[in-house]
Amino acid sequence: MARYRLTIEYDGTGFVGWQRQPCGPSIQQTLEDAVFGFCQHRVDVAAAGRTDAGVHALAQTVHVDLPKDYEVDTVRDALNFHLRGQPVVVTAAAAAADDFHARFSAVGRTYLYRILNRRAPSALDRTRVWWVPVPLDAAAMAAAAAVLLGRHDFSSFRASECQAQSPVKTLDVLDVTRHDQEIRVRAEARSFLHHQVRNMVGTLKLVGEGKWSAEDVAQALAAKDRKRAGPTAPASGLYLTGVVY
Amino acid sequence: MARYRLTIEYDGTGFVGWQRQPCGPSIQQTLEDAVFGFCQHRVDVAAAGRTDAGVHALAQTVHVDLPKDYEVDTVRDALNFHLRGQPVVVTAAAAAADDFHARFSAVGRTYLYRILNRRAPSALDRTRVWWVPVPLDAAAMAAAAAVLLGRHDFSSFRASECQAQSPVKTLDVLDVTRHDQEIRVRAEARSFLHHQVRNMVGTLKLVGEGKWSAEDVAQALAAKDRKRAGPTAPASGLYLTGVVY
Repeated sequence: MARYRLTIEYDGTGFVGWQRQPCGPSIQQTLEDAVFGFCQHRVDVAAAGRTDAGVHALAQTVHVDLPKDYEVDTVRDALNFHLRGQPVVVTAAAAAADDFHARFSAVGRTYLYRILNRRAPSALDRTRVWWVPVPLDAAAMAAAAAVLLGRHDFSSFRASECQAQSPVKTLDVLDVTRHDQEIRVRAEARSFLHHQVRNMVGTLKLVGEGKWSAEDVAQALAAKDRKRAGPTAPASGLYLTGVVY
Repeated sequence: MARYRLTIEYDGTGFVGWQRQPCGPSIQQTLEDAVFGFCQHRVDVAAAGRTDAGVHALAQTVHVDLPKDYEVDTVRDALNFHLRGQPVVVTAAAAAADDFHARFSAVGRTYLYRILNRRAPSALDRTRVWWVPVPLDAAAMAAAAAVLLGRHDFSSFRASECQAQSPVKTLDVLDVTRHDQEIRVRAEARSFLHHQVRNMVGTLKLVGEGKWSAEDVAQALAAKDRKRAGPTAPASGLYLTGVVY
């Protein structure tokens, strides 16, 4: 057996999410089917981030054990051949140590959240952004985001179905910047709670439209109660952009 | 009657092109149906650039005559309401003079062509780029592009079905730049021949892969013969990005 680390890109729109489910196509299953097509070998593919339905990835990292050694370029190209027609692509393959684990070896995850902030919806990125037609104050959102930085109990931003052992996480980066009609939120942490990025973005949006202040965000965080923070932003705007090992 | 100038954005993937056709959905028809939905008025919508099937627009300009005066924000929002679910969006509406014509008043058009230049195809932009897996030398392409600048007989880059009266056009801008894995070609002229941008890009790609020199491009141009230039680049990579009046 030889372990490989793969960097993959996907459009999450038509999928039930990363993880295999009885109810629809998953990215995991799609990739496992491609591995079977390549080497007639049934595998379990593990990913750094188990993204939800509709969430995209520019650089998800996974590992997979193949029955024998291959050139890394062969692994990438052969898997892409078997993935053809699917919105899932292997952008890079590398040999990995036997003890490398895409999820447990990761020491950092980065996400991007895209908000299209204009009166008209998007023609080209309908399933790739959160369309918010009311004007948002990105500077106010950036200032409020700073409240969330550091080590906190993020229970107020945690989905009820979250399986993490502890709600305490350290948020290293939460930047909000405007690029013409688009507001981009970049988040970086060792790991995140389920829905944490989307719940933080949904809360910052309240600040952007002037309904909440940074102080309201601080109080929501301190309450450690999901009902005290803002709504969950849609999956369509979220991208897993990188994993650090 | 009141004339309006609209800026529109669309994903050309599922369309037969801008122009109404018997064989499938056009952007023109989609927009005309939305106008009918808004004011129960059958109109002809004229566009600055009659983009082909699969070609996208970030800022196409059209004009339309409506039966009475409306607030421009109402026109934009009402048309977008009737376009909902369609990959066609009105990003701006403005009142226009009675003699304004989206096509005949235009004095400049700008296009962007996107080439994804990496071994792996795109998961997120499959219908939005031209995927070229062999390495391209963008600097060589940029140097060869300069050969095409200025006023020339562009017959070598003209589709056989082109309806322009003259093959002589003045190309003001043809920039080639690399942005990581993407090569972007920007073209600007008062007007273009049918397929001119795609035929120029298909020719520059030959330079990028080292099959042609800038001198070969100069000879192809001088030949005034479509058979002497490179193949037509796919529609998927092309975007109408602006119209100048």
